[in-house]
Amino acid sequence: MKIKFPDPTINNPKLSKPSEENSHGMLFENGLNISNEYYRIHDRAIIYKKPTPVQIVKVDYPTRSKARITEAYYRTPSTTDYNGIYRGKYIDFEAKETNNLSFSFTHIYSHQIDHLKEVAKHGGIGFIIIYYKKTGEVVLLDIGVFGELLSASESGGLKSIPVAVAKARGILVNLGYTPPIDYLRAVDQLYFKEKEPLT
Amino acid sequence: MKIKFPDPTINNPKLSKPSEENSHGMLFENGLNISNEYYRIHDRAIIYKKPTPVQIVKVDYPTRSKARITEAYYRTPSTTDYNGIYRGKYIDFEAKETNNLSFSFTHIYSHQIDHLKEVAKHGGIGFIIIYYKKTGEVVLLDIGVFGELLSASESGGLKSIPVAVAKARGILVNLGYTPPIDYLRAVDQLYFKEKEPLT
Repeated sequence: MKIKFPDPTINNPKLSKPSEENSHGMLFENGLNISNEYYRIHDRAIIYKKPTPVQIVKVDYPTRSKARITEAYYRTPSTTDYNGIYRGKYIDFEAKETNNLSFSFTHIYSHQIDHLKEVAKHGGIGFIIIYYKKTGEVVLLDIGVFGELLSASESGGLKSIPVAVAKARGILVNLGYTPPIDYLRAVDQLYFKEKEPLT
Repeated sequence: MKIKFPDPTINNPKLSKPSEENSHGMLFENGLNISNEYYRIHDRAIIYKKPTPVQIVKVDYPTRSKARITEAYYRTPSTTDYNGIYRGKYIDFEAKETNNLSFSFTHIYSHQIDHLKEVAKHGGIGFIIIYYKKTGEVVLLDIGVFGELLSASESGGLKSIPVAVAKARGILVNLGYTPPIDYLRAVDQLYFKEKEPLT
């Protein structure tokens, strides 16, 4: 099933950024944000996307109350995009999308992988969620499994994760409308060993 | 004991912002950031400050690789400043400072209080940490206690939290050098019922 979301291009200046963060990426991000809002409203979890880190260089004050930033730059995020609390546990993940049928390890920062490994070590839930645009599929991969695949790649294995491998080693995420990307159902299956999600 | 930290004014353009976020506030924030780094290095906790939310309006691309933001505005944060994982638990807090001997309830957004109450409801650790500059004291107040004081203020009680009340109802945070603001020791006492912190 293909993801269908409200058009996020309205009032979103980031869409003009000519990078990997194109409109499809924003659709995915938007779907995750709507899902998180759904989870919050239904009291399932409290998970937010962190703000995009920006280095502010110059600020004008046309009026005392309204500061206007006139020079700033995108910064590399220290950690991951999303974190929060679910079923009493700390949850932390990075969301990635790819135009290819295989997700290249070059598309994620190594310090983000290290961060997620630390989270798991401290007893939290850490994973990477990948949107394969070509097949319209979203897969959740535990950070431990992701780390194994990465280690294998470093000793001569695959330099990327084909969608079939992701589905075999991870959990396919249910896509729909309420919520659009039901990744907590996949979290239930993977970390709480349930066949059916909480309702 | 007064807090002494490295001077954060160097390379920090936010300091020119003429608001409550003055250099003392930055000293406090800097002390918390250094403490969090200390906790991470010593494998005690993984806690980060979230980036300041900025609404980006205009972006220039002098070169393909370097986007330059030319118009942006500070936004109201959706949640709190800090979150992460400590002793397997989700931890979330807001840091505030005051020039007065009493912390006014008008200095915190009600949606931030609601967020922290939600965190506690979901089994996480939620609190507010207040730096009383005049006395040089830092106090940690559980969100439940903070909520009680706020409710009392709404039914005719005090409109602010005097430092003496904060110390009586919360935990005084140890200040020093390693880490500068040892708030996890206070968390141990308050949420893990220990007299002595983990080492």
